[in-house]
Amino acid sequence: MAPVRNARVVYASIPEHFPEPGKHIIYDDSQTIDLDNVPLNGGVLVKVLVFSNDPYLRERMRDPSDTSVSFVAPFQLNEPIENYSVGRVVRSESPEFKKGDYVYGALKCQEYVVVDPKVAMRTKQFMRLEVHPDIPLSVYVGACGMPGQTAYFGWREFADPQPGDVVFVTTAAGPVGSFVVQLAKASGLKVIASTGSEKKVEFVRSLGADVVFNYKTANTEDVLKKEGPINIFWDNVGGEVLGYALANAASRAKFIECGQMSGYNTGYPAIRNVEQIFVRGLKVYGFLAYNHTYYKPDFYREIPPKVARGEIKYREDIKHGLDKLPEAIFELQKGENEGKSVIIVAEA
Amino acid sequence: MAPVRNARVVYASIPEHFPEPGKHIIYDDSQTIDLDNVPLNGGVLVKVLVFSNDPYLRERMRDPSDTSVSFVAPFQLNEPIENYSVGRVVRSESPEFKKGDYVYGALKCQEYVVVDPKVAMRTKQFMRLEVHPDIPLSVYVGACGMPGQTAYFGWREFADPQPGDVVFVTTAAGPVGSFVVQLAKASGLKVIASTGSEKKVEFVRSLGADVVFNYKTANTEDVLKKEGPINIFWDNVGGEVLGYALANAASRAKFIECGQMSGYNTGYPAIRNVEQIFVRGLKVYGFLAYNHTYYKPDFYREIPPKVARGEIKYREDIKHGLDKLPEAIFELQKGENEGKSVIIVAEA
Repeated sequence: MAPVRNARVVYASIPEHFPEPGKHIIYDDSQTIDLDNVPLNGGVLVKVLVFSNDPYLRERMRDPSDTSVSFVAPFQLNEPIENYSVGRVVRSESPEFKKGDYVYGALKCQEYVVVDPKVAMRTKQFMRLEVHPDIPLSVYVGACGMPGQTAYFGWREFADPQPGDVVFVTTAAGPVGSFVVQLAKASGLKVIASTGSEKKVEFVRSLGADVVFNYKTANTEDVLKKEGPINIFWDNVGGEVLGYALANAASRAKFIECGQMSGYNTGYPAIRNVEQIFVRGLKVYGFLAYNHTYYKPDFYREIPPKVARGEIKYREDIKHGLDKLPEAIFELQKGENEGKSVIIVAEA
Repeated sequence: MAPVRNARVVYASIPEHFPEPGKHIIYDDSQTIDLDNVPLNGGVLVKVLVFSNDPYLRERMRDPSDTSVSFVAPFQLNEPIENYSVGRVVRSESPEFKKGDYVYGALKCQEYVVVDPKVAMRTKQFMRLEVHPDIPLSVYVGACGMPGQTAYFGWREFADPQPGDVVFVTTAAGPVGSFVVQLAKASGLKVIASTGSEKKVEFVRSLGADVVFNYKTANTEDVLKKEGPINIFWDNVGGEVLGYALANAASRAKFIECGQMSGYNTGYPAIRNVEQIFVRGLKVYGFLAYNHTYYKPDFYREIPPKVARGEIKYREDIKHGLDKLPEAIFELQKGENEGKSVIIVAEA
């Protein structure tokens, strides 16, 4: 077979603020790949079907020479970005994968990728995926993928919910936040949830959250004063909201620091009330899901069946074609997406 | 016997900044007590021998109507302040204490106190004290008392020292900090320590700390950049130093938030680099020793013998007479004390 297009999405330049399509993140369809003959060196050739777009990618869009400590390495300039994907094996030289297998892991953002499973299974959570017949592939980068795992692992590891606890969840309409809302309600807790549009408020309310507000029109500090104090804070945003949460924390409350969305693009402000960590005896956990993959077997056993039965709800914001990814990244960083941002790269 | 003087130190008015002797904290010798006939109601009459002066007392000098969450209740106006003391039982109606017993616990700041052991043993760590013949009583409110326990409990609970770890300790010449320095060195770690005078620097160096600096003359940020990144931060001060520690934390470092000395008297600033809790996967523990008293038996078994043998070093700043306490409180809050601040109230 003749070489086919192998389009990709490339990290082209370092954004100072929001990553602009065509400038910092570009779609490039100039490359081709010979599917029959590309050397695999013991690996597998994967056709990418779904590519995930997640807020944390912004942290990787920094200067590649930046050596400061971070949970993720910077992207390399003029190389494809990388993120969780669902794909299908086209050819395999690995005994652990065969043609037609569905796979999941952090892959280079290309239509086709050669993966070395010896490396990828260890470092990029690369794995064969059992696809449930009632679950769309896209959900395996959402509720059944990294965001769902983030919520599930973090809740299991740190929440330790007690009867009567009040939970505050930010970005509560997103794939992590909405999952956490459901876990908290399943634990019987009172849930305060914030999100950024009326439509999102409606979705979060449908998940059973007790107090839902649009942080752009309501005053977060007032809501917490009235509805708190909070025993568990699931923090996806940081910034001044973190300061309000600290000021309205119950004694010995737990803060799960899962993201800092408010600062990725515009910088991190100084935070007020940090002394309350000491004064109130709080525990503040910087939480990175990949440090807790020992919950993975439980997750895959428990969550996909629940999702298939509609017991865990999710919303998706689906776009078709890798060429839509740069714009989707920009929208997500702006908070303009409605649901988990997913790119369908190809049909299975 | 005729009634005798029962001098006390009273919380007279709410300080906005530093607690001034004679204004916010006053010595009052107008009261008397009839030692033979004062009703005990099943309790014990204690003659106070040693009264401890600790930084955290400032947190109690707030508006008594302040209902915000805190690790300690505010003092009541026109009532004696209260803190850890060593005393001796003068009379007892309790089966658990007899005349002549040494006792330790948080007591009202008076020369004589009637204690209800049923309440005090539960809430104020009131206990009979086995006094080691080679240890002065004053040390039982220092290295062998609450400050030593704070260091010991917190280190046991949260430090989890690993070979090669770098520890940063603030207020390293104080009774908690100097104890932590010694625990960290005993664990074989590299210790960076900051303190506030050349004399204190010398003391901390004598404890074996690897890098000791006077934060008033050296630049904390530069020292941490050069000597870090840090894996364990023992934070007694908060404020901008906490921001520097966050910026120089190793991945998955542990922060033990044991005090906020920099802010007690002058207010708490907003803190920079708090997002690094997430970015670097840090754990930040608001630590209150009284939540970890399950280490107490180990502490009393292990520490006094070590102190007696000189294996744990300490420094004391001793004043004689309760009338010296208001000034000692002021000095301690200013950081002008040299060693653990202790008042000898009476000789045994």
